[in-house]
Amino acid sequence: MTALAINTDVGEGFGVWGPADEGELLDLVTAANVACGFHAGDPDILRRTCEASAARGVAIGAQVSYRDLAGFGRRFIEVPKATLVNELLYQIGALEVFARLAGSRVSYLKAHGALYNAAAHHPGHAAAIVEAVTLYDRELPLLCQPRTAVWERAIEAGCRPLAEAFIDRGYTDEGLLVPRSEPGALITDPAEAADRALEMARTGTVTSVSGRTVRIAPDGGELAALCVHSDTPGAVALTAAVRTALVSAGVTVGAGVLL
Amino acid sequence: MTALAINTDVGEGFGVWGPADEGELLDLVTAANVACGFHAGDPDILRRTCEASAARGVAIGAQVSYRDLAGFGRRFIEVPKATLVNELLYQIGALEVFARLAGSRVSYLKAHGALYNAAAHHPGHAAAIVEAVTLYDRELPLLCQPRTAVWERAIEAGCRPLAEAFIDRGYTDEGLLVPRSEPGALITDPAEAADRALEMARTGTVTSVSGRTVRIAPDGGELAALCVHSDTPGAVALTAAVRTALVSAGVTVGAGVLL
Amino acid sequence: MTALAINTDVGEGFGVWGPADEGELLDLVTAANVACGFHAGDPDILRRTCEASAARGVAIGAQVSYRDLAGFGRRFIEVPKATLVNELLYQIGALEVFARLAGSRVSYLKAHGALYNAAAHHPGHAAAIVEAVTLYDRELPLLCQPRTAVWERAIEAGCRPLAEAFIDRGYTDEGLLVPRSEPGALITDPAEAADRALEMARTGTVTSVSGRTVRIAPDGGELAALCVHSDTPGAVALTAAVRTALVSAGVTVGAGVLL
Amino acid sequence: MTALAINTDVGEGFGVWGPADEGELLDLVTAANVACGFHAGDPDILRRTCEASAARGVAIGAQVSYRDLAGFGRRFIEVPKATLVNELLYQIGALEVFARLAGSRVSYLKAHGALYNAAAHHPGHAAAIVEAVTLYDRELPLLCQPRTAVWERAIEAGCRPLAEAFIDRGYTDEGLLVPRSEPGALITDPAEAADRALEMARTGTVTSVSGRTVRIAPDGGELAALCVHSDTPGAVALTAAVRTALVSAGVTVGAGVLL
Repeated sequence: MTALAINTDVGEGFGVWGPADEGELLDLVTAANVACGFHAGDPDILRRTCEASAARGVAIGAQVSYRDLAGFGRRFIEVPKATLVNELLYQIGALEVFARLAGSRVSYLKAHGALYNAAAHHPGHAAAIVEAVTLYDRELPLLCQPRTAVWERAIEAGCRPLAEAFIDRGYTDEGLLVPRSEPGALITDPAEAADRALEMARTGTVTSVSGRTVRIAPDGGELAALCVHSDTPGAVALTAAVRTALVSAGVTVGAGVLL
Repeated sequence: MTALAINTDVGEGFGVWGPADEGELLDLVTAANVACGFHAGDPDILRRTCEASAARGVAIGAQVSYRDLAGFGRRFIEVPKATLVNELLYQIGALEVFARLAGSRVSYLKAHGALYNAAAHHPGHAAAIVEAVTLYDRELPLLCQPRTAVWERAIEAGCRPLAEAFIDRGYTDEGLLVPRSEPGALITDPAEAADRALEMARTGTVTSVSGRTVRIAPDGGELAALCVHSDTPGAVALTAAVRTALVSAGVTVGAGVLL
Repeated sequence: MTALAINTDVGEGFGVWGPADEGELLDLVTAANVACGFHAGDPDILRRTCEASAARGVAIGAQVSYRDLAGFGRRFIEVPKATLVNELLYQIGALEVFARLAGSRVSYLKAHGALYNAAAHHPGHAAAIVEAVTLYDRELPLLCQPRTAVWERAIEAGCRPLAEAFIDRGYTDEGLLVPRSEPGALITDPAEAADRALEMARTGTVTSVSGRTVRIAPDGGELAALCVHSDTPGAVALTAAVRTALVSAGVTVGAGVLL
Repeated sequence: MTALAINTDVGEGFGVWGPADEGELLDLVTAANVACGFHAGDPDILRRTCEASAARGVAIGAQVSYRDLAGFGRRFIEVPKATLVNELLYQIGALEVFARLAGSRVSYLKAHGALYNAAAHHPGHAAAIVEAVTLYDRELPLLCQPRTAVWERAIEAGCRPLAEAFIDRGYTDEGLLVPRSEPGALITDPAEAADRALEMARTGTVTSVSGRTVRIAPDGGELAALCVHSDTPGAVALTAAVRTALVSAGVTVGAGVLL
């Protein structure tokens, strides 16, 4: 198995509403999903976040979003496909400057918020993400979930979809995330998260809220990354526990195929 | 003498307020100052404008601005220098994607509106422009006016400032543009513009509103570009007359040192 | 019958992208749907548009929208209902200042673009519009189409929905607008528009693209307004023909129940 | 002496970057400077903040700003005077809706950040503030500092400028605030703040950083309000100490002339 990445969202402030100090979390993860200015992030924050990531050897990913500062990219917007393609390219390009300046580069793409969710089932927006990757650099890894619209589209287009799973979220029997409004949605106990991460890394499966074993790795493939939400309570302690557990169990943790 | 460029502002719409058809003007100029989204321009417009420019072999320049859609970048904003540097880098990076996609690249930088004016005398903002260029690519030409703060700063920093003059504007005895509110500010007669362009190209001087001969080329150097404002009434006819006059007089018109 | 209003969208520019001169159209209509800044309109434009409307005795309506300058309010946004209520109130309040300053007031509310369309079938957004009206002033007329979600919700809430029909658009057999991408979507012939307006005013019906007579007035009620899109080619001539035809036929044209 | 108000800035978040819980501070102050959406504040926040203020009998003031979310209104923008007037009216109108909905109303106006500073010396922007007040409601109190451009302009225009002083900031011998970058700029000790507040309330003077007694009340008039910055470290404890000291000394603390 290649190295397993641990990724998290960073740089999600705007202007005076800067992000919290993300140094501790960046010390633990291996891939940083950097906000590009459309749901969060301004040029100062992009630069600082890229520098903080690159200084730690953390891979920089473009965390692209609908154009929606007021809603933090959490609302679906019925933007035309062609416009969405261009909006994504714009964001990647803006981030690339700061990644390069920090001695790194944009190593992967990951959709944010409502766009991430829409990409799982909305044909047009899934296709827009894949088209943006194709136009920018067909080799750029696309972090997403297997068996979704965007995953299938990426395969068809000859792109490189990479699978991720969430160590701080509960899963349904269908392999979907339990909605945040329902019981079992959030995993905040470090020991529990560590156990789940080990299960994910070793077997490509997760135990669902109803106790079933559900596959989250791609069919015939492996997980490339585990994701922890930076705003999950106790995210640092949880990530530390997960990383320690993985390393102790002999799992190689690194930026892996994202770099 | 190397080729003299003719540059103009393009892509200055936003959303439904698209720019007018710029094809005729793009057929005549050799360098396009493309708005990058901070005073005008959205990702769709950036892409279309880059494609239209590249298809004609017109050099693409990053027309960077203060962050000011509501004011079209025409109002001075006392933004901190460090923030301005990052805002300019963000804009260049976003445009670069579309320039590359169109088979071209960002070939030069030119400040827009209030930033262009501030760069002439505001030490911090002049330095910010030069720092952005230095960080992005020290070889990137910077289109501006000689004997201004930004010009001097660029020389000090080892950058490549290139001189431009305006064929549709009157000049004062000090070599400054006549304010738009005063008589003689605008040149709209094609024949007059052609005569002035010839004078500029041959001698590096212009005849001021008071009849004096004023140097507009750099000390000991040449003009690299003539600028025509795309919103000057009759800009197409005026540019055609200028181009014909220059070519007839044996001046090489092209993207020149901008490419 | 009370006076029939003719309404149109105005003030839909932003910053340097000002709206075209709307004086001729304002001379013909009796109600102005003024953009409030969320899809178009800035404070300068709001003020000028209110002054131009009030000076002609034209009723001022708040043309409220999703927060979407980049998309001109034409894209559906899945904004939470509670947030939408507050966004609508914000827009009404901002416009009210300029309406009062011009010696008038906000006399009615009309949703714009994607919000207008969503209001017809999206329960949450229909309810948000009605809640905003209720909170602002339950007596404020709400211009919309009968037999839609927002119409029914307004009735339930004890508000005052008023019915409008479109004189420059074709209708389906179901009483819906023919999509702009299909034949028969647009009526641009002044004589035809005048005939249709007369039919609408007299009978509350319209002849559909398939030749059927379709009711567009509310069940047991009357049309309060006819709408003409200000961006329909020849909108001024078309509106003049409609107004002349209505007046000649004895229909009272005025702001009517909107004031 | 009429009641002395204690005012503070509230509602200065945006979208997901909500303001901290302001309940404790609102329990202590008598006037809330509510951000109106141009430097901070969105419709949801405006509503919640007005409700929280009105529920405590705290007067609601319109804290108006340059249009500058990215810079939190802290950067001077050379906006034309006429545009600034309209931008201020827009903000007041938007806030008024939520103040009324909460059973209160906009009781005064106070400029924010760079606009507050500009108003002290920039004739055009000082005049714009006064013109906005005059157009909205000439009786609306305008919270500012005496002997500044905006104060003088307000007097000339027949408006009601009211004087405030800052209990958490040091003063120069000229009666100006010590710049934040210099020693003595910030007062964070509750006992010291209480002593200064008492001096201000009783004598209309403050002891400057050099030990001089400097007048901060208007010539021949009184202070109407003391201001505490909500982001000063320990603002709640400091405000509590100030309020207790004032009340113990027999000073009436209330919304006073602001209501």
